[in-house]
Amino acid sequence: MTVHLVGAGPGDPELITVKALRLLSRADVVVYDRLVSPEILDMAAPWAEMINVGKDPNGARTTQDQINAMLIDRGRRYETVVRLKGGDPFVFGRGGEEALALESHGISVVVVPGITSAIAGPAMAGIPVTHRNVSSAFTVVTAHEDPDKTDGLNWRALAQLNTTLIVLMGARRAAQIRDRLLSAGMDAATPVAVVVSASTPEQKVHRLTLASLGDQPVPNPAVIVIGDVAAAPVINNPTIRVLLTQDALSQGRQA
Amino acid sequence: MTVHLVGAGPGDPELITVKALRLLSRADVVVYDRLVSPEILDMAAPWAEMINVGKDPNGARTTQDQINAMLIDRGRRYETVVRLKGGDPFVFGRGGEEALALESHGISVVVVPGITSAIAGPAMAGIPVTHRNVSSAFTVVTAHEDPDKTDGLNWRALAQLNTTLIVLMGARRAAQIRDRLLSAGMDAATPVAVVVSASTPEQKVHRLTLASLGDQPVPNPAVIVIGDVAAAPVINNPTIRVLLTQDALSQGRQA
Repeated sequence: MTVHLVGAGPGDPELITVKALRLLSRADVVVYDRLVSPEILDMAAPWAEMINVGKDPNGARTTQDQINAMLIDRGRRYETVVRLKGGDPFVFGRGGEEALALESHGISVVVVPGITSAIAGPAMAGIPVTHRNVSSAFTVVTAHEDPDKTDGLNWRALAQLNTTLIVLMGARRAAQIRDRLLSAGMDAATPVAVVVSASTPEQKVHRLTLASLGDQPVPNPAVIVIGDVAAAPVINNPTIRVLLTQDALSQGRQA
Repeated sequence: MTVHLVGAGPGDPELITVKALRLLSRADVVVYDRLVSPEILDMAAPWAEMINVGKDPNGARTTQDQINAMLIDRGRRYETVVRLKGGDPFVFGRGGEEALALESHGISVVVVPGITSAIAGPAMAGIPVTHRNVSSAFTVVTAHEDPDKTDGLNWRALAQLNTTLIVLMGARRAAQIRDRLLSAGMDAATPVAVVVSASTPEQKVHRLTLASLGDQPVPNPAVIVIGDVAAAPVINNPTIRVLLTQDALSQGRQA
């Protein structure tokens, strides 16, 4: 009778919250996205109905209307439904739309925030999104939308903020993002870090400048960090982080 | 021999990550801030040395240099040191400064992201920081600094972004923030939500417009959300969320 919109975090199964883990372990139904890791899905109860509504950009899609209808149906029939999303449900997760659809059908909704890769992705590369005397703010945008459509973003203001700019789902639009920011006046020498598969054993970090963003294909999923913090990672030993992540993965499998 | 910079999340003890909980339970030393809840501190091992470096804005302060020196000292002497911060260590948590100080003394640093109240605070009030056709980006700033000093923020660009603006630690500066945004051209009718003590049983939400922000004192700690999403909470039943939080608290105490 309650649908929980739950964030699964950035990838590392240990970066899920205690609350999300508790709900997963008692859920009757789990409706999940493509970016949720298998180790996290394994935390669900064995009797739970597991529904994959992953939207593969190259393959079949479940429409948002279909997802909403499924959540309403399961929310009416079961005590505990978990709608599990990569990252945080309210950071480009369309959680707001699902909450509205459920509430309009009289179904209770509870939000359980998750760790967004917008912040954890840079952190796993040693990059703080804020740093005293370097960046006193950060902005998170998505580049997933069709660039020919108006995305509602004021790119001139974004370019003039002079703080940390984080782009989610920007792998395919990297060159367009560069062009928009350059034509809006952002310095071509602005440092950029591209964090691929953040917080997983496959994590890779590429460092470049805005001028060369998009010259090489950007792998998916990637978090693109644009700004002075991207040049100066405060932690310089990636080995430690990778070891910790692998340790976490094996712990997750044992749990 | 390793200092873990760990985010404790926004307040609700169940919004800590599984990784943070594991590290807390095996830490030799826990160095924590004022905003970390007692229920989370209770998760540390009974033998851990617990060091409060909370900076009460009205009382005695531990300086950042003192904190750095303490972390370096404990990092040299103990296997597992947890530096526990409210929210996320890299979102205005000065985690970057501590990481640099530790690395410069040859001490290993690992970052464990936490859920920031910048996103979870609005979510607990039913407000998504992004919402399709309403806000396609969000910016997080802090207003803790002395407003007479240059804070490095381009308030004109902030006012022109036309997306969600989130202000942390802005309770005392609410009127100044309003004045800066109004003089930079932001619409006085822009919706504002003030979420006080987000994700705790004391949580309160005040709804107003930019024109009246700061007319009444804003309690601490508060997350101020400025933008169209603040007017239209997608979840309208606060009772459910408060019950969940209280349930979570009692679960945390039993654990």
